[in-house]
Amino acid sequence: MLTDDTLREGMQTPGFAMSYDEKIELAKLISSAGIKRALVAYPPAHKSEFEVTAAIVDGKYFQQVFGLGRTVKEDIDMINETGANISLHLPFKLDNMGQVYENIKYACTLGKIVEIGFVDIDMFSVEQITKFCHKMEELNVDVVQLPDTRGKMNPAAIKNVFEAAKKATNIKIEAHCHNDYGMAVANTISAISAGVDYIDTTIFGTGERNGIADSITLADYLMKNNLEKSLDIKGIIKAYNYVYGLILKKIGMNFFTDNLPVYGNNSGIQTAGTHVAYGNAFTEKNYSVNVYTGKKMIMEILDNNNVTYDREKIGKIVSMIKDESAIRGEALPVKDIIKIADGAI
Amino acid sequence: MLTDDTLREGMQTPGFAMSYDEKIELAKLISSAGIKRALVAYPPAHKSEFEVTAAIVDGKYFQQVFGLGRTVKEDIDMINETGANISLHLPFKLDNMGQVYENIKYACTLGKIVEIGFVDIDMFSVEQITKFCHKMEELNVDVVQLPDTRGKMNPAAIKNVFEAAKKATNIKIEAHCHNDYGMAVANTISAISAGVDYIDTTIFGTGERNGIADSITLADYLMKNNLEKSLDIKGIIKAYNYVYGLILKKIGMNFFTDNLPVYGNNSGIQTAGTHVAYGNAFTEKNYSVNVYTGKKMIMEILDNNNVTYDREKIGKIVSMIKDESAIRGEALPVKDIIKIADGAI
Repeated sequence: MLTDDTLREGMQTPGFAMSYDEKIELAKLISSAGIKRALVAYPPAHKSEFEVTAAIVDGKYFQQVFGLGRTVKEDIDMINETGANISLHLPFKLDNMGQVYENIKYACTLGKIVEIGFVDIDMFSVEQITKFCHKMEELNVDVVQLPDTRGKMNPAAIKNVFEAAKKATNIKIEAHCHNDYGMAVANTISAISAGVDYIDTTIFGTGERNGIADSITLADYLMKNNLEKSLDIKGIIKAYNYVYGLILKKIGMNFFTDNLPVYGNNSGIQTAGTHVAYGNAFTEKNYSVNVYTGKKMIMEILDNNNVTYDREKIGKIVSMIKDESAIRGEALPVKDIIKIADGAI
Repeated sequence: MLTDDTLREGMQTPGFAMSYDEKIELAKLISSAGIKRALVAYPPAHKSEFEVTAAIVDGKYFQQVFGLGRTVKEDIDMINETGANISLHLPFKLDNMGQVYENIKYACTLGKIVEIGFVDIDMFSVEQITKFCHKMEELNVDVVQLPDTRGKMNPAAIKNVFEAAKKATNIKIEAHCHNDYGMAVANTISAISAGVDYIDTTIFGTGERNGIADSITLADYLMKNNLEKSLDIKGIIKAYNYVYGLILKKIGMNFFTDNLPVYGNNSGIQTAGTHVAYGNAFTEKNYSVNVYTGKKMIMEILDNNNVTYDREKIGKIVSMIKDESAIRGEALPVKDIIKIADGAI
């Protein structure tokens, strides 16, 4: 089943953000297009994300709404409180797994659908991945998400992993394929052929770095192959037109070349010379700061710009930055981040 | 082996054209990136195409240079005269095949590599396609190109066709996958897995409607999987930067959204509502007229614009239009086509 991730993954598009109202409007458009499953926010990141998740749940736009968070009790409780189903990503460093498993077990007692993302499947063997699926099944998890977080897999490798995972357990499996090397659509189709239950896609393939698989391409594929019956391509085009307007307003047309695989500035590859002739257009893009930002990134920006600030107040500064981004519905430029740190805004 | 088709297929990009000098410059950049096989022009279309093919052959930029034409003696002789290898596409209506086969046989006597494109493989059974490959082998053809001309195939269907074709004959097989439905990269990788010998790609996936598989994505895939050894991704980026400049100058940034699969105005789907909010930007794009234009298209444009002209002079008018486009290195807007027909230019 196609799972729209534009409202969450799309928020990680470099230079992008959406306001509460924009997210609600987009949720309605995605819903009207016949998409029944959506990952809509990261509620622990900011109160705007918490509130928009609760509103989307209340609006009954989707059969299944998910909020994303870490495998910690605080995040689980907050997602649960929104009324959404619970999607959790494992920590990038897999230590202290005993506590992680305890927390996942706790999430499974809350009466919600629980989905756990494995993160970076290219770094693990098929055996390690299927073992993890078994463990999740044992803990009563409903869905395991196997994201190709860095976009490094290819269709043959995806086929191996997903066929093995489907064979080894009865748990539902979800694909989430990044597009740094242009493999997102091919890999997602490979996962579909391997029997995957859910696939994550975003409008224009937006998302972290240069994003994930493109919604309309996959929607068209699923409809043509009778794997989805009720998706409305014209409705999806309406949602695309809306996001097109947001991108023009918040990022500009450069997004569409920045987002190209391998070549584009947003793909994971730091290649000297890309867009070298047009470099000036891209200088402000090194940092993308919205409600998903963290202390580490803000400290790096302030240090790189030789801003002196009270280090004990970094939490307060980050919180003010997130508030400002949520109000504007935009990623903040470095100059405004500095102003906030200086107490000027 | 990666075959660059930007210099020929890329010329069919809606609203696009390249001058002689631009094609030579681009050929050098593609060559410097380690690409050894290229389809560079349609010599029978215009003398500029003939001359640029001869110059690219003389420049020894590639191990194999191909010129494209129809399966008629006149085209075969003209391509041969450039010094290039001979790539021929079958007529879209497969009648009078006896004469077509005679002409192909003739092409095979000229000491060049001969490649025959089957056209629209989605409309034929696997049996019909393998039978055609057998026939071509019998005629001493070197390569059969199996183009998904309308972009309607999917990876599973491609696998069936290409595996069968490779199994049935010893002839070399070439994939050429269009991208209307976003399947070009996935289908090309499927063809590679099925053992295809050559794959056609273009820079930014340019080409007829919304083009074919993207060069840099496939180059990266082939290098990572040790299927090509000497492609230079940084060199390919330089060629992309050059084409990026040409696109901005001749079409504008809209190209990058027009070229998106399913959604974009250039894809094969006539979907009411696409870009409805931004419709004005796209009005001039209904016709793309450069040296590849034909009498039928020009007559349609003139008739639709209520231009009266001497029908016996249509050949002369088309010839003047092609000359003008070749000089400018640009697709001609409708107003200039009308001026030429009026004898005003």
